[in-house]
Amino acid sequence: MLITSVQNKQVKEWKKLHERKYRYETKRFLIEGFHLLEEAFKTDQIFEVIIVEDGINYPSWVEEKNVIKVSEQVFKEISQTETPQGIAAVIEMKESAATEDKHVLLLDAIQDPGNLGTIIRTADAAGFSKVVLGMGTVDVYNDKVIRASQGSIFHIPIERAHLADEIAQLQQKGFSVWATTLEKAQNYRDITPNKKTAIILGNEGSGVDATLISLADQLVKIPIYGQAESLNVGIAAGILMYYIRN
Amino acid sequence: MLITSVQNKQVKEWKKLHERKYRYETKRFLIEGFHLLEEAFKTDQIFEVIIVEDGINYPSWVEEKNVIKVSEQVFKEISQTETPQGIAAVIEMKESAATEDKHVLLLDAIQDPGNLGTIIRTADAAGFSKVVLGMGTVDVYNDKVIRASQGSIFHIPIERAHLADEIAQLQQKGFSVWATTLEKAQNYRDITPNKKTAIILGNEGSGVDATLISLADQLVKIPIYGQAESLNVGIAAGILMYYIRN
Repeated sequence: MLITSVQNKQVKEWKKLHERKYRYETKRFLIEGFHLLEEAFKTDQIFEVIIVEDGINYPSWVEEKNVIKVSEQVFKEISQTETPQGIAAVIEMKESAATEDKHVLLLDAIQDPGNLGTIIRTADAAGFSKVVLGMGTVDVYNDKVIRASQGSIFHIPIERAHLADEIAQLQQKGFSVWATTLEKAQNYRDITPNKKTAIILGNEGSGVDATLISLADQLVKIPIYGQAESLNVGIAAGILMYYIRN
Repeated sequence: MLITSVQNKQVKEWKKLHERKYRYETKRFLIEGFHLLEEAFKTDQIFEVIIVEDGINYPSWVEEKNVIKVSEQVFKEISQTETPQGIAAVIEMKESAATEDKHVLLLDAIQDPGNLGTIIRTADAAGFSKVVLGMGTVDVYNDKVIRASQGSIFHIPIERAHLADEIAQLQQKGFSVWATTLEKAQNYRDITPNKKTAIILGNEGSGVDATLISLADQLVKIPIYGQAESLNVGIAAGILMYYIRN
């Protein structure tokens, strides 16, 4: 069977997965491109369906899944990239397994999908235990977040929570919670990280929310030696996570 | 005078500044938006002209410059942003003044304008002395580079050079030159930086060119503790520059 009509019911449903609300209602999300599908396969994600454009070659493991072929026009309709590779999949959302956490990253209201994806990729590289997204942070299943994460959304547990609650829980478990801020903050290099450390990073424009700052154990900053006003939040996250991890 | 025609000769010339070749022929480039104009003013850049959309309010210092007003339609024509702020300027390129260099960043074939802009912003923040762009690196006067740098292109000397020559010159001046690579490289944290240190970072996909690696004094890597295949080049640059600066 080959779906050739963009009016097809299934095509319309896949397109609805571009919307956050529909993703959470159905607990599914869309990924696209060979590299991401490979990462999803290697990390045992549950594939509801793999959507392949007619004429595209795919790896042999794909054949064991539920594959639906579509025309080029239909693929373009469901694709969210400028140069579609002709392969996509619908993946079921998973609850992340409970882990023994040591290093946790908390993200308060990160707005830019590229920033969030890159930060998740860096948290994965730095060997952090999990990433917790505050309510104001962009959705992790947004296509740009998934792409920028380069598959790291499948490698590291990602949770959504009210950060004030999360901070309290982490502190009960013996975590030292750092918040990044410019005022009354110490240079990060002057603080020796605890074995269990969590860091809160904030919105690109306005930084970490004042209530969350008041709950933190340590206020830290990365010094600016030149004339730049600030660092990009992804860069700040990278510097701090690698400092803590080492 | 108000320019209302997109066919106007001057409008066409401003648009030609979107092309790299024309920028270097005329030694001028275009910037856009209040924040960048403010940064250019604060750092004593030479304004050839400031282009203001009719009806837009501007800071008082603008009046002392050569201002040309244009219609909304004309401004859209010369703008390279999705939501134009209605203010732009043509700036003359400057030779960067010779400085006593201590920390130098060399960029070999960075392709993504957003990456380059963010790296320049981070080099500025980390107090690096200058950034040297290899021939394969995207043009610093590209509008996306300028925007992502958030004005840091006006704060830190940026040169264009053959990196092999630049490495030889730096080594003669007593610099230790680090190249980032995955093979035969040491963990950066195991190396104590020289007072004069330069780092080479490479292309997003293929890394630093093999010839340049062979010229370096130290091969360094940032360890990957998780399952990510690599770090984003901007994040790697941030971690290494702050490590060296401290």
